[in-house]
Amino acid sequence: MPEPPVAIDPADWVCPLPLRETKRIVLGHGGGGVLSEELIENLFLPAFGGASGPARDSALLDVEGGRVALTTDSYVVQPLFFPGGNIGDLAVNGTINDLACSGAQPVALTAGFILEEGLELEVLGTVAETMGKAAANAGVGIVTGDTKVVAKGGADQLFINTAGVGVVPAGVHIGPERARPGDHILVSGNLGEHGVAIMSVREGIDFGTVVTSDSAPLHRMVAAMLDAAGAAVHALRDPTRGGLVASVVEIARAATVGIELDIAKIPVPETVSSACSFLGLDPLQVANEGKMVAFVDPSHSEAVLEAMRSRPEGADAAFIGRVVAEHPGMVVGKTPFGTTQVIERQLGEQLPRIC
Amino acid sequence: MPEPPVAIDPADWVCPLPLRETKRIVLGHGGGGVLSEELIENLFLPAFGGASGPARDSALLDVEGGRVALTTDSYVVQPLFFPGGNIGDLAVNGTINDLACSGAQPVALTAGFILEEGLELEVLGTVAETMGKAAANAGVGIVTGDTKVVAKGGADQLFINTAGVGVVPAGVHIGPERARPGDHILVSGNLGEHGVAIMSVREGIDFGTVVTSDSAPLHRMVAAMLDAAGAAVHALRDPTRGGLVASVVEIARAATVGIELDIAKIPVPETVSSACSFLGLDPLQVANEGKMVAFVDPSHSEAVLEAMRSRPEGADAAFIGRVVAEHPGMVVGKTPFGTTQVIERQLGEQLPRIC
Repeated sequence: MPEPPVAIDPADWVCPLPLRETKRIVLGHGGGGVLSEELIENLFLPAFGGASGPARDSALLDVEGGRVALTTDSYVVQPLFFPGGNIGDLAVNGTINDLACSGAQPVALTAGFILEEGLELEVLGTVAETMGKAAANAGVGIVTGDTKVVAKGGADQLFINTAGVGVVPAGVHIGPERARPGDHILVSGNLGEHGVAIMSVREGIDFGTVVTSDSAPLHRMVAAMLDAAGAAVHALRDPTRGGLVASVVEIARAATVGIELDIAKIPVPETVSSACSFLGLDPLQVANEGKMVAFVDPSHSEAVLEAMRSRPEGADAAFIGRVVAEHPGMVVGKTPFGTTQVIERQLGEQLPRIC
Repeated sequence: MPEPPVAIDPADWVCPLPLRETKRIVLGHGGGGVLSEELIENLFLPAFGGASGPARDSALLDVEGGRVALTTDSYVVQPLFFPGGNIGDLAVNGTINDLACSGAQPVALTAGFILEEGLELEVLGTVAETMGKAAANAGVGIVTGDTKVVAKGGADQLFINTAGVGVVPAGVHIGPERARPGDHILVSGNLGEHGVAIMSVREGIDFGTVVTSDSAPLHRMVAAMLDAAGAAVHALRDPTRGGLVASVVEIARAATVGIELDIAKIPVPETVSSACSFLGLDPLQVANEGKMVAFVDPSHSEAVLEAMRSRPEGADAAFIGRVVAEHPGMVVGKTPFGTTQVIERQLGEQLPRIC
C-alpha cells in the first residue's frame, strides 16, 4: 500500500513564496514597496495605537511657542528580552528620560528600526506592542517611524532609534552647568538594577533572587519636583551608561564644581551589590534606566525629596552628597571610615550593549 | 652578531593598550566613559562645527508657536562611500527632504550612530565631516547625538539615524491626501541616479560613464515653490526607496485619486536607462536622494516649474502627468505608442541597502 502524501505545513514554506505568509523579516520589508506598507499597517500602527491616516514622511505637532527639547538614542541591548522589560520599553523610557533631564515634558517620539533579515515577526511584534504600551503609559505618541532591513549577519536581530521632542515649561532652566556649590545631590532610588538584570540573563547567572530592570519613565516625577521647587532644581541627569559616576563627573566638569558623595548613603540593594562583587563590577558605574540624579538648592532639597517619594518611581529617593567649591571637576567619595577617595569614570566599557 | 631588535610601530599596537591611540573603534567608545567623551569632543563636535558647551542629553531649540514637523530615518547604505557622496550627506539630506515634503523648513537634526567594533576612526571621521558640511550647506544644525558600539559582526560597519525637526510656515498645508483631480504632477529632475550610482560601485560594473548620486537638500527649492504658488502646491514627495512609482502610488491611495503618468516625459538619463536595462531594474522604481515630486493645481504649475528650475537642484524639472478622478488608488502610464498600462509597486526590494 502506498504511503499517504505528507502534508506540508504552510508555516514551513520558505522564500521565494509565499512571501506574505512569512513569519520572518525578509529584505523586502525594508524596500519601500508593498511589503513595507503591510508591515507598517499590520504590525507597527496597531502596536503604536495610531490611526493609519495619510502616509507622511514627517509628523506634524502643534507646539506652543517656547523652548523645544530634542534628543535621540539608539538601543542595541542584548538580550532583547530581560527581567523587567525589553528593548521596546527601554527605547521609549530612555528617550523620555533624556527629555526629562532638561525639565521638558515629552510631546512625541519617533521610532527607527534596523532589522536583521530572518528576525521573527513575532519578536518584532512583541517589541512594538511593548513600545506602544510604554508610550501610552507615559502619555506620549510615537508619531513617525522608519524601517530598514539588512541581510542576515549585517546586524544583530533588532536595533531601535528613538528621537524625542518635548516642551520646556516657561520659567524652567535646568542644565548641567547650573549646579553650584552648596547644592544637595539627590538620587531617586536604588542603583544598579538595570545593568545587573541584563548581565544575569546574558551570563546565565542565578543570583538567588531575580533582579529586574528599573526601566520607567520619569517625566511625571520631574514635573512633581519642579512643582515643589521650581528654579531651585539646578541640574538633572539620568544615570544610564556609566552609571552614577559618569553622571556626577559630567556635572562636575560642566559646572566646574567639586562633588562629594556620601558613599554610605547611596542606595544599592543587597542583590545588586552581591551580583556586582561576583562579576567584578562597580555598582556606581552600572547602568540604570529609571533613576534620576538631581542637584538642588539646599533650601528646597527636602521638598524635592518629598516630591520624588510621592511617586512610585521615586519611593526610595535619598540624599547622597553635596556640591563643593573645592577641587572643581573632581568627584570624591566619603567612605564609611571617614576617609575620602577620588572617584573616576571608567575609561571604556564595563558592560557592553546594556541599552 | 646578534640581530638588532625589531622596532614595533605604535600603530600596530593592539588592545588592551594603548586604547587611546587606537585607529579603530573599540567597544569602550560606546561605554559612556572617558573614551566616549573623547570621541564626542575630538571627532563629532569638530566635524559638526559645534562649540562643545555643556554636555546635555537633549538640545534646546527656540521654536515660534505653530506646527512643528518631526521625522526620522535610519541609513544603512552599502558601500558607505559612492560616487557623489557617502552615508553622511545622505543621512543629512534625506532627513531634510522628508521635512521639506511637509513644506517645513528644517530647524535641527539629531545624529545617532551604531558602530561596529573595529571600524576605522578615519572612516567615521570622514563621514562625520561630510555630515557637518552637508548640514552647514543646508543651514541646519546637528544639535544632539548618541553613539553605540556593538561587537565585531554585530553590525555592518556603520549605521546612522537622523531625526529632524522643522517648522511649517503659517498658511502652508501640504499633505499626500490633498492631491486632487486636475493637479499637474511635476518632478524636479532626472530620475534613478542614486540607485544606479550605488549599484555600479557595489557590483563593480563600469557603465562607461560614472553615474553620481543626486544626494542634495531640497528645502530651499521647496521654499521657492511655495513662494511662487502658496496653497496651490497640494502634495510633495521625495521618491527615495521604491522610486517614483512608490511615491505616486502612495499619493494615489492617500488622496483616493487616479494618476496618469506620461512615460515619455519622465526624465531618465541615458546612462541610467542603459544601466537599468543591464541590471534588470525599472528606473521608475530606483531610489533618488535629491528629487521631489510635486502635485500642483494646474493654475500654478507653470509658476512652480519655473521656481524649481530657478534652483540648480531643480534645473531639469519637468511635467510628467496628471491626477484624474477615474480609477482611484491606481496609477497608469501612457506609453509613447498611445497605449496605457497599469503601474504597480514592487512587492519587496529591488535594491537592498540603497539608503
